[in-house]
Amino acid sequence: MSHPAMLVIGAGDATGGAIARRFAREGYRVCVTRRTEEALAPLVGQIQQDGGWVRAFGCDARDEDAVSALFETIENEVGPLEVVVFNIGANVRFGIRETSSRVYRKVWEMAAFAGFLTGREAARVMAPRQKGTIIFTGATASLRGSSGFSAFAGAKFALRALAQSMARELGPQGIHVVHPIIDGAIDTDFIRDNFPAMYAKKEQDGILNPEHIADSYWMLHQQPRDAWTHELDLRPWMETF
Amino acid sequence: MSHPAMLVIGAGDATGGAIARRFAREGYRVCVTRRTEEALAPLVGQIQQDGGWVRAFGCDARDEDAVSALFETIENEVGPLEVVVFNIGANVRFGIRETSSRVYRKVWEMAAFAGFLTGREAARVMAPRQKGTIIFTGATASLRGSSGFSAFAGAKFALRALAQSMARELGPQGIHVVHPIIDGAIDTDFIRDNFPAMYAKKEQDGILNPEHIADSYWMLHQQPRDAWTHELDLRPWMETF
Amino acid sequence: MSHPAMLVIGAGDATGGAIARRFAREGYRVCVTRRTEEALAPLVGQIQQDGGWVRAFGCDARDEDAVSALFETIENEVGPLEVVVFNIGANVRFGIRETSSRVYRKVWEMAAFAGFLTGREAARVMAPRQKGTIIFTGATASLRGSSGFSAFAGAKFALRALAQSMARELGPQGIHVVHPIIDGAIDTDFIRDNFPAMYAKKEQDGILNPEHIADSYWMLHQQPRDAWTHELDLRPWMETF
Amino acid sequence: MSHPAMLVIGAGDATGGAIARRFAREGYRVCVTRRTEEALAPLVGQIQQDGGWVRAFGCDARDEDAVSALFETIENEVGPLEVVVFNIGANVRFGIRETSSRVYRKVWEMAAFAGFLTGREAARVMAPRQKGTIIFTGATASLRGSSGFSAFAGAKFALRALAQSMARELGPQGIHVVHPIIDGAIDTDFIRDNFPAMYAKKEQDGILNPEHIADSYWMLHQQPRDAWTHELDLRPWMETF
Repeated sequence: MSHPAMLVIGAGDATGGAIARRFAREGYRVCVTRRTEEALAPLVGQIQQDGGWVRAFGCDARDEDAVSALFETIENEVGPLEVVVFNIGANVRFGIRETSSRVYRKVWEMAAFAGFLTGREAARVMAPRQKGTIIFTGATASLRGSSGFSAFAGAKFALRALAQSMARELGPQGIHVVHPIIDGAIDTDFIRDNFPAMYAKKEQDGILNPEHIADSYWMLHQQPRDAWTHELDLRPWMETF
Repeated sequence: MSHPAMLVIGAGDATGGAIARRFAREGYRVCVTRRTEEALAPLVGQIQQDGGWVRAFGCDARDEDAVSALFETIENEVGPLEVVVFNIGANVRFGIRETSSRVYRKVWEMAAFAGFLTGREAARVMAPRQKGTIIFTGATASLRGSSGFSAFAGAKFALRALAQSMARELGPQGIHVVHPIIDGAIDTDFIRDNFPAMYAKKEQDGILNPEHIADSYWMLHQQPRDAWTHELDLRPWMETF
Repeated sequence: MSHPAMLVIGAGDATGGAIARRFAREGYRVCVTRRTEEALAPLVGQIQQDGGWVRAFGCDARDEDAVSALFETIENEVGPLEVVVFNIGANVRFGIRETSSRVYRKVWEMAAFAGFLTGREAARVMAPRQKGTIIFTGATASLRGSSGFSAFAGAKFALRALAQSMARELGPQGIHVVHPIIDGAIDTDFIRDNFPAMYAKKEQDGILNPEHIADSYWMLHQQPRDAWTHELDLRPWMETF
Repeated sequence: MSHPAMLVIGAGDATGGAIARRFAREGYRVCVTRRTEEALAPLVGQIQQDGGWVRAFGCDARDEDAVSALFETIENEVGPLEVVVFNIGANVRFGIRETSSRVYRKVWEMAAFAGFLTGREAARVMAPRQKGTIIFTGATASLRGSSGFSAFAGAKFALRALAQSMARELGPQGIHVVHPIIDGAIDTDFIRDNFPAMYAKKEQDGILNPEHIADSYWMLHQQPRDAWTHELDLRPWMETF
């Protein structure tokens, strides 16, 4: 039971998967979640093929009981959580008059409320040990409410507030809270299928490689506590900002 | 029916009341809401005594149907809305581990989701007229997630994202969206009763006078469209920042 | 000698002139400066024709002795300074490799160092009286270092740092320090002659009217000390931001 | 002549020295500067003892001709510059009324103007090769103009504007411009001798270890170009922010 564990909430996209693989390669017992466990089978297969330890959980991260049970199961059956990554996005774009209350609420539940549940449960298990790293994945919309993004920016702003508040409270308790800001398209199936012009930049490194995001997350976890980063941006060299 | 109307959502505190009185003095037909209509009786009395026009509505601003109905009633029975002020706060402070999901969600529903419903309905009635002012009251926590404020800062950050997103979308449609940031204690019964040391600063103008906040809101509405303010801070001279 | 005085450093453009006229209309003894006194003749004529009090000074605001002497003369011969506005801009655009050290230094001397001299002398005369308003005109480049603006943004960032630092030091001494951010083209001869497409937006209020900027400066000076603004943006309704 | 070179402007303190040693260990030909060459002897000795390549230059970084000559000498005699670090600080604290123009100007010349000269010369040699990393060391005062810091914050704000402007111009040309923000005391002789209470936190990692800052600079240089960081903070876990 002394094996260090790590958890990626939202390992459904390329980034969450790459982070999981990275920490598995470093010897962590890696726990990954998506809404349904079955969808995690390919990722589990990859990690196991690479010789890593992995366990998949179906979990609706907006469900308080489910999240509490997840943390309890991991702490009891896998090992003490050293690293928790919250990586659920929910990018939508609607004019304000066309934004339904259902969309506005759902985006917040997925990208902010689930982040709160995750962060709080992580704080609860890590604080008594005075040790751990909690990473909340941010985006361009974490810093700027652009036209058409009231729902998405609202949720990402809220997640940033959570990360700041937790960093200020938990830093002096030995817990490293980080909010990386991914400012650019990531190499995902979604971008490939829906934004081919954007995806074409991949040939010249114009979109983010999930493996490189994962390298940054690993680096952030490795930082000695006298020189912690709370916020950093990650952006392709060609990206306008 | 050509009388211009204005609406204050959350006229329960000193600030909302002062704003309502200010616009009533300027000749607006003023509509004010709180959770229960009865609680608005003193404010209604003040405005009527001053010769102003006022109508009170009990309205749970988190209830989409209620907010839609409110706007419809005002537009049909009072007059075209020129100014809408969203003024619901929900200041709470809890360590992250002690923040219940109920509190986290409720603070967001009151301070952000209700703001979204209000802002969207305002946009819907104002956009066809290409005219109007929408003001969302911000706070210190709109800019900074301090320790213990994950819920409150999360909601206020989200409201700021909404204000930014709406300003960028609606400005070029002739609608002025403003996000004033109140950075300091306001002269309210709540501060008087709970923070007497803070309240003692009132004698030297060390806390905000709601009438002066209301003057700023009036000024913001009066700005000509070539020189609009989207964000400004309001802070007592003695306040540390 | 009990007439309140005000000073505009950099009354050479439309904005500085409009501010001077505004405060003259309100009964202030207005002092205005440009590099050469002669260039102020038209402004002096306007103010006098309107029945205002005005005195023009040729002053290189980068020259410490000249600035000190200016404040001394005004305090001795005109009246106690209640309002000081620093309004010198120096907008240039060069790629970093084409930015000469002469340009980089000169832009800083005009837009930041002269602001420091002005602000310091204003603080020196106002602090013993515990009263006064100091306004530093900011720009889009005060918040963002865009490509090609290393010199201009460098100076405007420095001026913003000055305004923040002075506000935090002098606010609790009763001195109101403000940093308005003008985010958009202003209706000036320069814009008319050099950016005709931009100037054409004037017909639909798409560029800032200097008189409206002046109204905001007057409003800022009038704010009661329990509700001071330190920073606000001023932007045409159509402007992208 | 194919050996990659790197340059630290301002290797006089613990941080600059640690950065130089770090890149020397990685095989770079390291060039270091201070006002006088002699003062670099201990650093040169350390690097050589570790088997590294190093060359010391006395250089007043505020002197345009000296900086130009420095870059020319390095490019001609050492190798193509891949990494340039600007690391000159100039922390002073004075009330605004006590800030002399000499101090205000000197702090800017050291911490901003010298940064401009360094950055521009770096851009000139790197742009034709479409490759390189330029790092400007930032501080708490880069983000906030605190009371008493008009001079220091003015210079650090200006340096940040430079870094932003250069990043936006040069990023799409393949040059990585970074602005790390060191938010906390560093383990230096200066802190040890002047702030013993602060220095006492060293035992619990409460002040920054220069070697760890250097590790971050190395990491930043190693980032693949699809995932570059422009700004990150580095802060001890105990530090209030």
